[in-house]
Amino acid sequence: MPRASEAARLDVLCIGNAIVDVVAPVPEDFLTAHATAKGTMRLIDAQAAETLYAAMPPGIESSGGSAANTAAVAAGLGIETGFLGKVAADQLGAVFRHDIVAAGVRYPTPPLADGAPTARCLILVTPDGQRTMNTFLGASVAFSEADLDHDLIGATKILYLEGFLFDPPPAQAAFHAAARIARAAGRKVALSLSDPFCVARHRAAFQALLPTIDMLFANEAEITSLFETSDFNAAATAAREAVPLAVLTRSEHGSFIVQGAEQAMVPAAPAEVVDTTGAGDAFAAGFLAGYCQGRGLAASGWLGSRAAALVIGQYGARPRVDLAGLAVG
Amino acid sequence: MPRASEAARLDVLCIGNAIVDVVAPVPEDFLTAHATAKGTMRLIDAQAAETLYAAMPPGIESSGGSAANTAAVAAGLGIETGFLGKVAADQLGAVFRHDIVAAGVRYPTPPLADGAPTARCLILVTPDGQRTMNTFLGASVAFSEADLDHDLIGATKILYLEGFLFDPPPAQAAFHAAARIARAAGRKVALSLSDPFCVARHRAAFQALLPTIDMLFANEAEITSLFETSDFNAAATAAREAVPLAVLTRSEHGSFIVQGAEQAMVPAAPAEVVDTTGAGDAFAAGFLAGYCQGRGLAASGWLGSRAAALVIGQYGARPRVDLAGLAVG
Repeated sequence: MPRASEAARLDVLCIGNAIVDVVAPVPEDFLTAHATAKGTMRLIDAQAAETLYAAMPPGIESSGGSAANTAAVAAGLGIETGFLGKVAADQLGAVFRHDIVAAGVRYPTPPLADGAPTARCLILVTPDGQRTMNTFLGASVAFSEADLDHDLIGATKILYLEGFLFDPPPAQAAFHAAARIARAAGRKVALSLSDPFCVARHRAAFQALLPTIDMLFANEAEITSLFETSDFNAAATAAREAVPLAVLTRSEHGSFIVQGAEQAMVPAAPAEVVDTTGAGDAFAAGFLAGYCQGRGLAASGWLGSRAAALVIGQYGARPRVDLAGLAVG
Repeated sequence: MPRASEAARLDVLCIGNAIVDVVAPVPEDFLTAHATAKGTMRLIDAQAAETLYAAMPPGIESSGGSAANTAAVAAGLGIETGFLGKVAADQLGAVFRHDIVAAGVRYPTPPLADGAPTARCLILVTPDGQRTMNTFLGASVAFSEADLDHDLIGATKILYLEGFLFDPPPAQAAFHAAARIARAAGRKVALSLSDPFCVARHRAAFQALLPTIDMLFANEAEITSLFETSDFNAAATAAREAVPLAVLTRSEHGSFIVQGAEQAMVPAAPAEVVDTTGAGDAFAAGFLAGYCQGRGLAASGWLGSRAAALVIGQYGARPRVDLAGLAVG
C-alpha cells in the first residue's frame, strides 16, 4: 500500500556502481593507440585495466561513480541524500566510503569482504577536456538485492538509479527490485541513462522500463540513442511522451527540461573546461536539489548548470569547494 | 677510490619517504580544532591518521613524498632520475609506483610484503593555499640500508636526500650510508631540509652533516631554524660558509642561490595560488634540472620558479601537464 504521505527521511537515494576514479591527462593519440571511443565509457576486465594503467601518465585518484557523484553534490547543495553501492574492504574502498560520508551522504552498504577489489575507472582526459572512461567493475558487480534497504527506499522522495547498473546482472536485478519498492511506497523513481553505449547495450530493457519512470535524465547522445534517432528534437518529443519529467542536457548548449505541457531551456553556466568528468552527474544533482527545494524547472536547471560548471573547471568529478553558496544563489 | 670520471647513469637519485597524499580543502578553524601548526609537517600514528581522516572533507589522492616529487618533476624536465623509498604491497603502493614510473623515474625499491601499509600524508589546504601536512609513515619506516643500490648511487651525479629521512631511524642509517657511497664514488650529495620542525628535531645532526654536503636546499623557515637565527641574511651568510652551494627559497619573494663568491636572486614566477603542496620540491627539481643541463645559477633558479608555479596552481604536488616545454624555455 502506498505510504507517500509518511514523512520522507531522505530527499534522494542514489543507487549505482561504487567506483574510485583514476584521472590522467593524455594526448589525443593515446585514445587511438588504446582503441577507446572518445567521450564514452567502456567496461574492461582486471587484466585490461592493469595494461591500460601501466600505459597511463601519472594521475590523481578521486571518488567517482555516476550516481555516487550525484549523491555527493546533492548533499553539498543541502538536501538529504543517501547512496547504495558496493566497494571492497580495501584501501580504495575506504577512500570511497570516506569521501561520500564526508560529503554528507548516508552510505549504509557494507563492503565486500572477500572478492574483487573496489571498482576503478581509468579516465583519460584529452586536451579539449573530454573524458573517456574505462571501467573495471570489481566489487561493484557484487551489489545485489540483499544490499537494498527497504525501509530507507520506502522513506525516500526520489529513488535515483544509474543506467550503468544494468551492466552487472545482480545489480540489474537490484535495480528492478528497488524500483518496485519505491513505487509500492508511492515514491518517485528517476533514471539516468549514463552513457550512449550503455543505452545501446540495454536499449530494449530501458524502453520497457520507461512507463514506470517518473524522471528521466539523459544527455543528447543518450536520448537519441534510446529513441534511435539522430534528431534531438524528435528524441525530446519522444521523451516528453514517455515520461512525466525529462531532463535533457546538451553540454555547452545547456539543457532542455520538459514536464508535460511545461518546459524550460536553460543555458550552460560559464566554465573553463579542464575535465568534463562528472559534469552530467553534477547537473542532475543541482536539478534534484532545486526540485526537492520546490524551485521551478528553469531555476532547478540553472542550479544544475552551475554545479556542472564547478566540476568542469577541475580534475575529478566532485567539486572541491563548499557548495552552500550555490544552493542559496 | 673515487670513480667520478666514469660516465654517470643518472643525473639525480632521490631518496625519501614514499608517500601517497590525501589532499582536501579545509577552513582555517579546522587547523585549530585539530591542533596542527599551519604550513608544517607533523608525524602521526595510524590511530591519529584514522581520526583525522574521518574528520576531513572529501579529498583527492595523488602520489607525494618530498624527494619523490622532486624526482618526478626533474624527470619531466628531461634529466635522468631515480628514486629510492619504501611502499607496501597494497593499492596505494601500486598507485605510488605507477605514478613515479609513469613520470619517467627509475624506481627499483621492492615493496614491503608484510607490515605497515603505504605511507600517507593527510594534507589540509586552507583558503590561502597553504598546506599543512600530517604524515603517517607506514611502510616508509622500513626503508633501510638493505634497500640501497650501491652501483646506482655510485653512478649518479647528484644524490638528493630529504631531511624527512631523519625521522625513521633505519632510514636515517640508510641516509648516512648512501651519502658515504656517493662520496666514495666522487659524486655530489644534496640535502633538502624538508621542514622547520624536522630541522628542530634533528638540528645537531644536520649541522654535523653540513661539512659533507655539496648542495643544500632550504626555505626561509628551515634555514633560519638550522642556524638558530630570525634573520634570513644571517642564515644565508652562514649557509654560504657551510656548504659549497646553497639554494634558499622564500615563497613569493623568490629564491637566493649562493655558490662561493657567486650568487643569484631569482624572482618567483606568477602563479594563481590554489595549493602550495610540493612547491619547494618542484623548485628543487627545476634547479637540479637546470644545473645538470649546465645552466647558470640564475637560469637554473628560474626553471625552479616556473616548475613551482605550475604545482601551486593546482591541487596536488606533481604537475599534470607536459613539462617538456618548460625545460627548453
